[in-house]
Parts: sequence; structure tokens; C-alpha cells
Amino acid sequence: MDILEKSLKKHYEWAGKMETKLRAPIDSLDDLALCYTPGVSRACLEIASDKSKVYDLTRRHNIVAVITDGTAVLGLGDIGPEAAMPVMEGKCALFKKFADIDATAVCLDTKDTDEIVNIVAAISKSYGGINLEDISAPRCFEIERRLKEKCDIPVFHDDQHGTAIVSGAALINALKVVGKDIKNIRVVISGAGAAGVAIAKFFLSLGVGDVVCAGRAGAICEGGTYTNPAHAELATFTNKDKLKGSLADIMRGADVFLGVSAPGIVKPEMVKSMAKKPIVLPLANPVPEITREEAIEAGAAVVGTGASGKPNQINNVLVFPGIFRGALDARATDITEGMKKAAAKALAALVDDSELCPDYIIPTPLDPRVVKAVAKAVKDEAVKSGIARK
Amino acid sequence: MDILEKSLKKHYEWAGKMETKLRAPIDSLDDLALCYTPGVSRACLEIASDKSKVYDLTRRHNIVAVITDGTAVLGLGDIGPEAAMPVMEGKCALFKKFADIDATAVCLDTKDTDEIVNIVAAISKSYGGINLEDISAPRCFEIERRLKEKCDIPVFHDDQHGTAIVSGAALINALKVVGKDIKNIRVVISGAGAAGVAIAKFFLSLGVGDVVCAGRAGAICEGGTYTNPAHAELATFTNKDKLKGSLADIMRGADVFLGVSAPGIVKPEMVKSMAKKPIVLPLANPVPEITREEAIEAGAAVVGTGASGKPNQINNVLVFPGIFRGALDARATDITEGMKKAAAKALAALVDDSELCPDYIIPTPLDPRVVKAVAKAVKDEAVKSGIARK
Repeated sequence: MDILEKSLKKHYEWAGKMETKLRAPIDSLDDLALCYTPGVSRACLEIASDKSKVYDLTRRHNIVAVITDGTAVLGLGDIGPEAAMPVMEGKCALFKKFADIDATAVCLDTKDTDEIVNIVAAISKSYGGINLEDISAPRCFEIERRLKEKCDIPVFHDDQHGTAIVSGAALINALKVVGKDIKNIRVVISGAGAAGVAIAKFFLSLGVGDVVCAGRAGAICEGGTYTNPAHAELATFTNKDKLKGSLADIMRGADVFLGVSAPGIVKPEMVKSMAKKPIVLPLANPVPEITREEAIEAGAAVVGTGASGKPNQINNVLVFPGIFRGALDARATDITEGMKKAAAKALAALVDDSELCPDYIIPTPLDPRVVKAVAKAVKDEAVKSGIARK
Repeated sequence: MDILEKSLKKHYEWAGKMETKLRAPIDSLDDLALCYTPGVSRACLEIASDKSKVYDLTRRHNIVAVITDGTAVLGLGDIGPEAAMPVMEGKCALFKKFADIDATAVCLDTKDTDEIVNIVAAISKSYGGINLEDISAPRCFEIERRLKEKCDIPVFHDDQHGTAIVSGAALINALKVVGKDIKNIRVVISGAGAAGVAIAKFFLSLGVGDVVCAGRAGAICEGGTYTNPAHAELATFTNKDKLKGSLADIMRGADVFLGVSAPGIVKPEMVKSMAKKPIVLPLANPVPEITREEAIEAGAAVVGTGASGKPNQINNVLVFPGIFRGALDARATDITEGMKKAAAKALAALVDDSELCPDYIIPTPLDPRVVKAVAKAVKDEAVKSGIARK
């Protein structure tokens, strides 16, 4: 049985991947009176007189809402709120497993940007953080931006920033392997959706010399005409040399290829046309832009993919549990660029120079050091920048 | 230390009364691939092609959202979404403890009726049922009515119907004790908020001869002028004999007093003025309209209060876990009047005629038979009336 059919069978057996569990005992009438009425009224009054106490007296300090509108689920597209639920529940399971965070899934039955912003803001007082998930671009950018303004808790669109941070960590270490300076490299990103746009911005903030993005119509370049406002914005700060043409055209001479696009679209000749010691990160999942074996055969110096069980698995699970653990521990009001950079650097630093090699640029998804290291870096940065409430 | 201070101390120790727990293992990369990507996509597609499968492949079949806007929390009033959280978390704990339901708390940061309806409808696809909680009257009536129309899952305002059902069960058995026929009795209800209005309607649907409600301004009566639309509606179908005056006036000759109002407002003389063998149910909590001892001293034949540890504790926890367990088991689209009546009768029937006496008209809150009996009756009624999906 292949993995898809085995997973379906398991989903029927599990009948839900998450459930709830009591932290307070209810075994007697006395317990009931402490946990619920009449005793509970005292905790309510404590919070009514100081709202910050909700973090001490309830689970709010440890709850993240995983929120989607079901419009961009995995590679499946707009499958709606019901069909999105298995992914959201899976994400909640990862939050618990890796970071002991009590996440809850919220699948929204609307695609209207204004409505989504209002709904998420209105329910945000119930949670310590908001993880936006699988919301289609370019709507996801506006939704996240407006929610970050409206909410006093961290809002983080994982498809954007989780992917950007884990890619950033991989880049930092891959550059060490090939001995190139981040300031001098050109990165080509295939795919200008949520992940591609966020990676472009994040790589530039890490100091990458230039980034050139390609959407379905080829290179995004100043002077082009874009109906997608995110592409119009990208054109203003990427692609310094105003490269035009197809993905193959812009990959010529590039130092790094990163794909968040479609299976099989990169051919060996395109890797061969890159600069010396090319870094190739085809992250389309489950089928990458070019297979690891083909890329190596074509001369790639370092390869990382989304594939499980192969070297250099570039997986968001290395990032989002630690990001939220750190943000929640700090009771941060936001997740800032500084916190994201600190996360990428902390993740990269877990690979010791003595171990660093083309086949080991990033820890494996189950490495137990990861969440602690990322969380600590994120919390420390939150405290340093004055947005921690604890 | 009194119960309030002890409860506060416990709330600090618990740091949240609920957490999450995995039902699917994530101990290896293979587990990860089954629980999350890439395997999970198969479950998504299964639901995309048949939405009802979300009940089999995710936890939706067992999740109830406990939703409030924080406007009528316990007796504390409008204390806001943060301060309401300890109650909602406590309710989630009771759902798990008594009915193995995985409830999640949602505290809304809006008091606008239209917004609340739209928000709850938009998030409802994530849950198997909606428990509305501590929303002030008369807004709660419109919010519940509109949500019942919009949602294809059960919507139940516990402050109304949970209280009405448990009171109905107590009434059925108390009438057996005093040997009166439900058709011939007059019930006086003190308090015309969410609970009072729902109890009046429910008692009439159980066959009570007449109900007279009293708000702060006295008896609600046809011909009166009411700014509260719920009171105007009550006036059209309660108080057949058009009784007017104060609570004391309308209690004269009444067979049953039920209070969901304010502490200490019923005096012994008022109980003495009732019909023979009066049933007195002063449910204001923690301090009732008249104490059990005073009511008995004044001649009450049967007394029930909200107080823990005394005979006849009339507590919603006897109802809502079983109501939702039955509705979820049936995958019902609604909780109907028929299901509510079935719940009240099943609860009453747990007290055997050989045990029935003035001090035992209703099971204790920790009686393990309760949830099963109520759930079975509710599920059977849902199936019988054709609104079950399983």
C-alpha cells in the first residue's frame, strides 16, 4: 500500500488526530466547585481587573489557533474549509509534539479578505498566537499585514515565513559549504506565491546580493506589468540587473536555485548553466522541481528538498514550533523580522562546522535540539527588542 | 481559605484547565509522513469529494465550541472576553470529563449581534456543535435563532435550554412527590432573562397549565408595555389569568416557584401564601432567592437549589454533556424541542419511584448514569425525527 492509501486508512482509525485533556481534576463535588461555579468566578474577577492575568489563570499563554480558509491547501488548491481540516489537525499535532503547544484548528467558511480579518481579530483574545495556514496569495499578504496591526498577539503565516526561515538556515550553511559570501550571490526563486515572495524578502534581509523571482510568466522585473500587487512590489526591490525571460534564462549564472513551484520544471541543463558550485533547493512537495539525483548528476554542489528520509530535508517543522514556543514564552506581541532572522541563524548554528558537508546543512526534522534552540533565540530577540510581556 | 480564594490559587497552579493530546503518534519520519504531508493530502481529497467524510477523518464529530461574548458571565455581568475565559475553559473541562467531548473555548471580542452571528457561522465548519454561553438577554435569543437557521450543526444556548431541561426534570419528579397533575398547576418564574424565558417556554411545552413570569418590574402580562421584545413575546402566551403586581402578589396560590433571579428576594410569607404542598426551586447561585432551610420552614413540600452538597442540586451539568453527546453521536443537524423534552424525561426517569422523595427528585451531578441516559434519549429522538446523519 502506498503512503497515501496507508495515511487514509490511518485517518479512519484515528478518527481525529487530536483531542483534549484535563489539567484540573473533576472527581468530586468539591473539585467541581473549584474548577467551575462558584469558585471560578474569582479567577474571572482577577482577570476583569487586570486583563494580563488571563495568561496566568487560563491556557491562553499556550494556545495557538491554526487558521485557514481552505484556499491553498498543500498543492491541492481551493478545497474548502472541511477538506482543509486534516492538514490543520496535523499541524496542531506537530505543535503539541514538538513544542508542547496546545493548538486548535479553525477552518473559515469565507474567502472574503475583510471578513477573514474581522473574524480572526474577534476570536484572537482566546489565543496566545495565530498561525495562518494555506491561505492563497496574494490575499494572504494583506490578511496577515492587517491582522498584525489589529492583534496584540503574534500572527504568523507559516507558508510564507516558516518556509522562508528554514530556507534561510539552509542557505546560510550551504554557502559555508561552497565558500561563497552571501553579499555576492544571486538567488533565483521559482514560484511567486506566498512562499516565493516571503523567501525573496527574507533572503534580501539576510544580506543576499540579489534575488530574481520567476512566476508562471517568467522573470519578475521592474518595468513589467503585474496584476498581482505582490509581484508589482517584488519588481521594485528584486532583480537589480533587470533580467528578463524564462526560468532557464535567469538561472544562467545564478548561484542558488530555490523552487517553491511545480514538479519537474527544472532540467539538468538549467543546473549546468548556473555559476560554479551551484546550490539547488527544489522544495516543491511531494515531487520537486528536479530530483536530488538529477541535480547532483548535473553538478549541484549542495541539494536540499522537501523529501522525507533524504539528506537536507527543508521542512517547516524545523521552524514553526520553535518560533511560537519562543514567542509564547516571551508573551510577545508580534513575531518580528529580527525574531525570524534569529530563528534562521539559531537553526543553522545547530550544524557544527565539523559536521557541515553537502549532505548535512540542516538538522533533521526529529532532532530534539531544534525547538529549544529556535525558541531560545526567538524569545531572547523578543526580550531584546522590547516586545516581550514576560 | 474560602472556596473563592482556594479556586484562585488552584487556577494559578493549573495554568489552564485544559490542554491538547495527540491521538496519532509522531515518533518517526514515517509517522510524520502519515499524519502530515505528504500522506494527509489523501484524507483532504476524500473530504473534498464528499464533505460528510470530515466527520470520519477528523475530530469534527467530537468537537464542541464553547462560545461567549463575555456579556453575561455567571452573575458577574459584562466582564469581557478575557475575563470570561476561566468559565469557558471550565465548561470545556466538564464536556471532557462527563461526555468525552473535545470542547474548545472561543471568547469573542465583539458584542454586535450581526457580527457574532456571522463569525460563529463562519467558524462552525470546524466543529460538531456550538454551545453558546453567557451571552446577555435579549441578544442571546436572536443570536441563537439566527445561528440555528444558518448552521447545519447543533446550536444550543446552555444558559437557556440546559437550565430549562434540568428544571423540567426536577418539575416532573417534584409533581410526582406532591401528587399534582402538570396540566393543573401554575408556575411562577422570578427572573425573565435568558434562563427565565427559556424555562417558561419549555414548561409550557411540557404541558404546564400556566406560567407567570416576573421581571424586575413585576408580573409580565398581556397589555403591558415592554421594551424587551422577549418580554413582549412572553406576555402573549403566559399568564392566562392576567395576574398583575409584584412577585409576592403572583406567588399567592401558585403551585411552583422557580427563581433564576436574585439572592434573598423571596420571604417565608411568600412561600406560605402559595397553594398546598408548594414546590420551591430557588436557583440563583451561589445565593438562592430563599434558602432551603427557610423554604422548608415556611412549608415547602419539595425544595431544589443550585447549591452543591445539598439535596436536589439543580445543575446544568446534568444536561449539557448528555445533550451534546447524543446530538454528536447522531450527527444531528439541530437540537430540537423534541430532543430537549426527551432529555428532561430521561433525566427524571433515572430517579426510581421507590427512591423518589422530597429530598431526591434529581440525580446528583456526579451520577455516572446521567450522561448515558440523556445521550441515548437525545440520539434516539434525533433518529426518530429524521435529523440524524448517522
